Amino acid sequence: MSVPFGDDVSAIDIGSGKLVVIKTDMLVDKTDMPLQMSLWQAARKAVVMNVSDLAAKGVKPTALLTSIGVPRGLRKRDIEQIGEGLNTGAREYDAYILGGDSSEASDLVISCAAFGIGEKKRLMLRSGAKPGDIVAVTGPFGKTAAGLKTLLQNLSAPIRMKKTLVDSVLMPRARLNEGLTLAESGAVTASIDSSDGLAWSLHEISKASHAGFLIDSLPIAEEAKQLAKLHKLNPIELCLYGGEEYELVVTVKPRLWKKVVKKVSLIRIGRVTKEKTLILKVGKKTFPIEARGWEHFKTSLPKL
Amino acid sequence: MSVPFGDDVSAIDIGSGKLVVIKTDMLVDKTDMPLQMSLWQAARKAVVMNVSDLAAKGVKPTALLTSIGVPRGLRKRDIEQIGEGLNTGAREYDAYILGGDSSEASDLVISCAAFGIGEKKRLMLRSGAKPGDIVAVTGPFGKTAAGLKTLLQNLSAPIRMKKTLVDSVLMPRARLNEGLTLAESGAVTASIDSSDGLAWSLHEISKASHAGFLIDSLPIAEEAKQLAKLHKLNPIELCLYGGEEYELVVTVKPRLWKKVVKKVSLIRIGRVTKEKTLILKVGKKTFPIEARGWEHFKTSLPKL
Repeated sequence: MSVPFGDDVSAIDIGSGKLVVIKTDMLVDKTDMPLQMSLWQAARKAVVMNVSDLAAKGVKPTALLTSIGVPRGLRKRDIEQIGEGLNTGAREYDAYILGGDSSEASDLVISCAAFGIGEKKRLMLRSGAKPGDIVAVTGPFGKTAAGLKTLLQNLSAPIRMKKTLVDSVLMPRARLNEGLTLAESGAVTASIDSSDGLAWSLHEISKASHAGFLIDSLPIAEEAKQLAKLHKLNPIELCLYGGEEYELVVTVKPRLWKKVVKKVSLIRIGRVTKEKTLILKVGKKTFPIEARGWEHFKTSLPKL
Repeated sequence: MSVPFGDDVSAIDIGSGKLVVIKTDMLVDKTDMPLQMSLWQAARKAVVMNVSDLAAKGVKPTALLTSIGVPRGLRKRDIEQIGEGLNTGAREYDAYILGGDSSEASDLVISCAAFGIGEKKRLMLRSGAKPGDIVAVTGPFGKTAAGLKTLLQNLSAPIRMKKTLVDSVLMPRARLNEGLTLAESGAVTASIDSSDGLAWSLHEISKASHAGFLIDSLPIAEEAKQLAKLHKLNPIELCLYGGEEYELVVTVKPRLWKKVVKKVSLIRIGRVTKEKTLILKVGKKTFPIEARGWEHFKTSLPKL
């Protein structure tokens, strides 16, 4: 098998050093869709979720198939919105929707399967992190956790800040260009997307690579810090234990670091350690990074 | 695009005359799963549904991905049953389950995506039927419609007959070997699987091929005839307007007919006509074949 079971994607070897790389994931309204998210946004997000996993492996999605569970109450206009959201999502990443099916269901279920052709030797797995490698991310963390709290608890915030936070939930973006450039660079030893949160993603790389992490520079988003201050939230909690964030978390060969950051904007957050522990260092204090992530908001939201 | 939109499968051209052929379809318990169907059988069926579409195009499935919506009430043992059903289904067709995801949902939703590598020139589309071609099927029709009626209305029937009918619903089989041999033969001008019923499948080929059909020999399954007799049902109705039957419906070049039936067991049911009408001939009388198919049994079954 070209890709170990449990990595972000699956792959079929088609010879000549090439792989068909595949990912499928489903969005279910009651667990993945806050009330404020439109059908168009939900459909677009279902695409982004799958594209993000290919991005983390450095593979361009060629096309997507969709399979949709449609609750009885939806009207023709609703279905069109879903179709438009799917197409918009696909076009943002230069892919397209190849086809799909729909069935009646109690929930709105949008299942996508994304496909791309990848080069076997360029594929970025979860399993190659080596002690001494630099740990980096493609962007700051905490906005979606803060944004979801803002939506669910209707937290007050200055309008521009609120918009940034809420947009991060409703209009997530996959880091495809970054993933492709990182794969091309040959500098990355392990990669994962952060859809289950930063802490969880680090634990996944740790498990697959048999190594640990010392994180000494948490990439907390400015807006998350501000919201935390306003509402007495813990910014570290927002940063580490959020989810649906779609940044890439990578480990990089130190000797290629300078070269790669000229091409991709990366934030250094720590380094890979031989000890298989995940440690956060703040000032002189250290804390364990727990293997927990995103908690679905199913209990706090009424059913659509 | 190598495969027209709306055909059974989608495809990505990967060069050298080869295609990645893909199909995704979802099984939803409340519409696709009679109460008597076990979780193991439902999962196996979700695989068969997708394999059947590849079979109709003459493409061997290499692997499947699954995406499962899991209702809260399911226990660990239930999930294992689903996993075993998926694996059994895949192994029956020499394919395997590559990976997948699960989410919480109100219904049990089993979405599969099946993939295979096909030769572009061998792919059997819906669109090539020519006037004069022979229309044929890989097996008799009516057993699943009769079987479902037996299950839903608890119809009485001799035990062996009942078992055959009910098994056709609970343990469907995809005609993969037949599809592969037919594609290899070069004799087939159009092909479709009959998951939406014989009448519907004929209408789909008619639409895609811009041709009609004269069906003069309905392939009614013996057991369907017998059940119809016992319970005053219409055997033609059972044969034409059932569904979930997974036989292949094909059109064949007349000059290659004798050669192809030496390799694949085919039942001749009529011929392709220039007039774009679908006519059933019984004795000297003719009847239109309507564009209707399978009606889901959602209204007659309680929710799982």
